Amino acid sequence: MPLALDFESKVFDKKVIDVSGNKESVVVGGRDLFPKLPTAFEGIQQIGVIGWGSQGPAQAQNLRDSLEGTGIKVKIGLREGSASMDAAREAGFTEDSGTLGEMFSVVAESEMVLLLIADAAQAKLFGKVFEALKPGATLGLSHGFLLGHMRNVGADFPKNINVVAVCPKGMGPSVRRLYVQGKEVNGAGINASFAVHQDVNGKATDYALGWSVALGSPYTFMTTLESEFKSDIYGERGILLGAVHGVVESLYRRYVDAGMSPEDAFLNSCESITGPISKTISKEGILAVYEKLDDAGKKTFEQAYAAAYKPAQEIMLEIYQEVASGNEIRGVVMAGERFARFPMGKIDGTPMWQVGEKVRAKRDEAAIPVHPFTAGVYVATMMAQIDVLMEHDHPLSEVANESVIESVDSLNPYMHARGVAYMVDNCSTTARLGSRKWAPRFHYILEQLAYTAIDGNAELDRALVEAFKSHGIHPVLKTVGEMRPAVDISVS
Amino acid sequence: MPLALDFESKVFDKKVIDVSGNKESVVVGGRDLFPKLPTAFEGIQQIGVIGWGSQGPAQAQNLRDSLEGTGIKVKIGLREGSASMDAAREAGFTEDSGTLGEMFSVVAESEMVLLLIADAAQAKLFGKVFEALKPGATLGLSHGFLLGHMRNVGADFPKNINVVAVCPKGMGPSVRRLYVQGKEVNGAGINASFAVHQDVNGKATDYALGWSVALGSPYTFMTTLESEFKSDIYGERGILLGAVHGVVESLYRRYVDAGMSPEDAFLNSCESITGPISKTISKEGILAVYEKLDDAGKKTFEQAYAAAYKPAQEIMLEIYQEVASGNEIRGVVMAGERFARFPMGKIDGTPMWQVGEKVRAKRDEAAIPVHPFTAGVYVATMMAQIDVLMEHDHPLSEVANESVIESVDSLNPYMHARGVAYMVDNCSTTARLGSRKWAPRFHYILEQLAYTAIDGNAELDRALVEAFKSHGIHPVLKTVGEMRPAVDISVS
Repeated sequence: MPLALDFESKVFDKKVIDVSGNKESVVVGGRDLFPKLPTAFEGIQQIGVIGWGSQGPAQAQNLRDSLEGTGIKVKIGLREGSASMDAAREAGFTEDSGTLGEMFSVVAESEMVLLLIADAAQAKLFGKVFEALKPGATLGLSHGFLLGHMRNVGADFPKNINVVAVCPKGMGPSVRRLYVQGKEVNGAGINASFAVHQDVNGKATDYALGWSVALGSPYTFMTTLESEFKSDIYGERGILLGAVHGVVESLYRRYVDAGMSPEDAFLNSCESITGPISKTISKEGILAVYEKLDDAGKKTFEQAYAAAYKPAQEIMLEIYQEVASGNEIRGVVMAGERFARFPMGKIDGTPMWQVGEKVRAKRDEAAIPVHPFTAGVYVATMMAQIDVLMEHDHPLSEVANESVIESVDSLNPYMHARGVAYMVDNCSTTARLGSRKWAPRFHYILEQLAYTAIDGNAELDRALVEAFKSHGIHPVLKTVGEMRPAVDISVS
Repeated sequence: MPLALDFESKVFDKKVIDVSGNKESVVVGGRDLFPKLPTAFEGIQQIGVIGWGSQGPAQAQNLRDSLEGTGIKVKIGLREGSASMDAAREAGFTEDSGTLGEMFSVVAESEMVLLLIADAAQAKLFGKVFEALKPGATLGLSHGFLLGHMRNVGADFPKNINVVAVCPKGMGPSVRRLYVQGKEVNGAGINASFAVHQDVNGKATDYALGWSVALGSPYTFMTTLESEFKSDIYGERGILLGAVHGVVESLYRRYVDAGMSPEDAFLNSCESITGPISKTISKEGILAVYEKLDDAGKKTFEQAYAAAYKPAQEIMLEIYQEVASGNEIRGVVMAGERFARFPMGKIDGTPMWQVGEKVRAKRDEAAIPVHPFTAGVYVATMMAQIDVLMEHDHPLSEVANESVIESVDSLNPYMHARGVAYMVDNCSTTARLGSRKWAPRFHYILEQLAYTAIDGNAELDRALVEAFKSHGIHPVLKTVGEMRPAVDISVS
C-alpha cells in the first residue's frame, strides 16, 4: 500500500485524485493562482535562493517572475568569489538591486531559504547554514539528499525552523523552459512533489505549496523527505539516466555485433528511445508503445520485454537498497572528496557517442524507427523501476513522475537534442556519479542474462508480459497526465 | 609508511626481511617445521573447522595431514543437513571417526575453531557462534570480513577468547593443490598473512603461526584484521578478479572494433594476460614483462600504461574507500538477502566468453602472444592497485601478495585453464559480487578515458612510465619470491 499522506491548505484548493484505486491529495497549479501567492507566503519578505547550479537559476527566475509586484524579494546567495556571480548578474540578480549577496548573509537575512547548492556542498556546509538561519525561518530543499546524509552522520535539523521541500520532477533547465512556455499555455511546467518535514508556525504547508505554484508546477503531490530522497536518487540511477545509458550501450553493441552499421545501430537503439518511443509514452502512455507495433513487432517486443525485465529489476532493487541503506549517499560524499585528485571525466569520447553525434547531425526525425527489440528492453527497464518503487510503498504520483514523466517530458527530450552522453556529462554531480556507477551494471546484466536467454531461445515468460499489459501504472499515468496541458518542451 | 608490526614466537624462528627499505618480520614455512606443531598448538586437543566452501576443504585436509600422529584432532562442523556433508565424508571426515558433526556442537567442543563459512553466513550467525564458544577458546578467521561487518552493526568479539586470523593469499583449491605438490618440493604452497586480534592466554601468536605452517604457507607475514579485510576485499574487486575481468572485456571489444577476428581478439587480450604475461610476472617480476618487449612493443606498452594508469587508479581508490567505509560489506550482506529472489546469474554465456571456450580448446600455449598494448593496460591496473594499497600503509608483503603473487600464482593459472568467466562464476560469493560490480566500471573507464586518450594522440605522461620502472615493488617481489620454491601450480 502506498504511504498514506494528506494535508490541509488555507490558501489553495486541494484536489483528491484516484490513482489505481488509491486517493492522493494534490494541488493543481497555474498562473491563475499567482494572486494567491502573497497570502501563501504570509510573513515572508525575502526568499533567499542559495546556489546557482541546475535548479538555482530556474527556480530563482520563476519565483521572481511569479512574485513580481508582490513586494516579496528573491535574492541569490553565492559563495564569496563564486564563478556563478556573473551568470546571476546576467539573469538580472545584482548587488546594486539588493538581489545578490554572499550566501551566509543571504541565509541570515531571509525568512525563507531555498538551499539549492550541490549535494556535496550541502553535506559540507549544512552545519554553518543551520547556524546562520533566523529562528523561525523556513528552510526549503529541492531534494531529500541532506536528510539522507544527516542520517549517515547522526545529525538533525534545528528544532526551531520549518523544513519543507519542493522537488520539481525535472532538471532545472526544463523547469525554466516550460515556465517560459507556460506564459503562452497556462499550466505548462514540471510537476513537483512537496514535503513538510517540520512545521513550527503552522504555515509550512502553504509556504511549500506557494513555492511550488510559483515555480509553475502543473500539479503538486505530497511526499516525505525520506520517500523523496530514496525515489529521486534511485530514479536518476535508474531509467532517468543510468539505466537508459546502460540500456543504449548494450543495445548498440548487440546490433553492431549482429552486423548493423554503427550508424544504424545508434539509430535503432539510442535514437529510437529518446525520439519516438519517448514521445509515444509522453502523449499516449507506456502501453501505446507496444500497441502501435505490428504483429511481428509485438512478438519481438514481448521476447525482449520478458527477457530484460528480471535482470533490470535485479539491478533496480540493488540500487534501491543501496540508496535506502545510506551507502549510495556515503559514496557520493566520498566521491566528491576525490575530485581534487581525479576530476570527473567525460564519457562522450567513445566511438559510440561519436557516431551518435554524426547521426544527430543528419537526423530525419520522421524516419527514426521504433525498433521493437529496443522498445521491449527499454520499457521492461522502466516497468522494473516502477515495480520496485511500488513495492516500497511510494506514493503513485511519485512513482509515475520519477519513473515515466520526468524521463519522457524532461530528460529524454534533452538527450534527444544533445545526446545521452551530454546529459551524463552535464547533470548534477550526484546523478553523474550515479550514471557512471550503474549504467555499466545494466549493460552487463542485460548482456549476460537477458540477451543470452533470447539467443538461447529461452521460453517466453508470458506472465511477465500479461502483468505489463494490465499494470496499474497505465491508468495512473492517464490521470496525472490530464492535469497538465500537452506542451512539447522546446530544447534550444 | 607501512604499518609497523612485530611479534614474538616461542616456537618458530622469526626472520626479518628488508622490503623496499622497511623491515618485516615473517616466518618461513616448510615441512621440516611440522614436528614443532604440537608445541605451537599446546593446550589444543581439537581444531574445529566450520564450513566446507572454498577454504574449508583445503585447510581441513592440510591440517589433518600436517597434524597426523600428533593426537590433535581436526573435526569438521557443518549445518544440520548441509549438502556438503557428503563431500566432507568423501574427504575422510566422518561421524563414525568423530571428525564430522553439527557446527555448533563442534564449536562448543573445540579449543580452536576455524570459522570458514561464507561471509554472509558469518554475518548472520556470528552471535550464535560466539555464544557456543568455550571460554578461553581460540577463534580463527581466514578473512577480516567479520570484523568489518561487526563494525557496521556495532558488535564486538567476546572478551574471553583469543581471536586470530590466518589468511592464505590464494583460493582454497590452490591452498590444497600446492600443499599436495609440496610433498615433492618442500615449501611449495600459498603464502599467508596472520593477525592476532585478541590474546587472552599469551599463546595466540603461536596458535596462528602453527596453523599457517600446517597449511603449508611458504612464508607467513603479519597484518591486522582491519588491514586484512580492507586489502582482501579490495584486491579481489581489483586485479585478482574484478579488474582483470573488466580489463579483458574492454580490450576484447577494442580489438574486435579495430578489425580483429573474435578469436584473435580473445587471444591477444585474455589469453595473453592469463598465459605468458602472468607467467613472466610470476617467475621474473612485473618489470620483466616490459623488458622482454622489442622497441616497438615497449613504445606501445608505454602508451597503454600511461593512458590506463590514472583511470584504473581512480576506480581502485573508489573501491578502497567503499571497502574501508563499510559500504562494500554492507552491500554484500544486502545482496545475500536478495539471492532468494534473484539468484546470482552466470556471466559465461556472452559471445566473448563463448569464443574464449573455443580458443582454449585449440590452444597452442607456446603461440600465445604477449600483446604489448594488453600488457601495458594490465600492468598499469596492477600498479594502480599496488599504489593505492601503499598509500594506505599496508604492509609490503600484503601489498605484494594481494596485488601480484595471488594473481599470478593462484588465480590467473585457474583462469587460464578454465576461463575468467569460470572464476567469476565459481569463487566466493563476496568476490563474485565484487567482480560483477567493479569489472564493468574498469571496462567503462578504460574505454571512456584511457582508449580515447590514446586514439586522440594525447601526449605520453612519461613520469608515469618512469615511476613504474623505478617502483619499489620490484625489489619487494624479488625478496618475497625467494622465500618459496618455484613450483607451477598444476590445475587439474
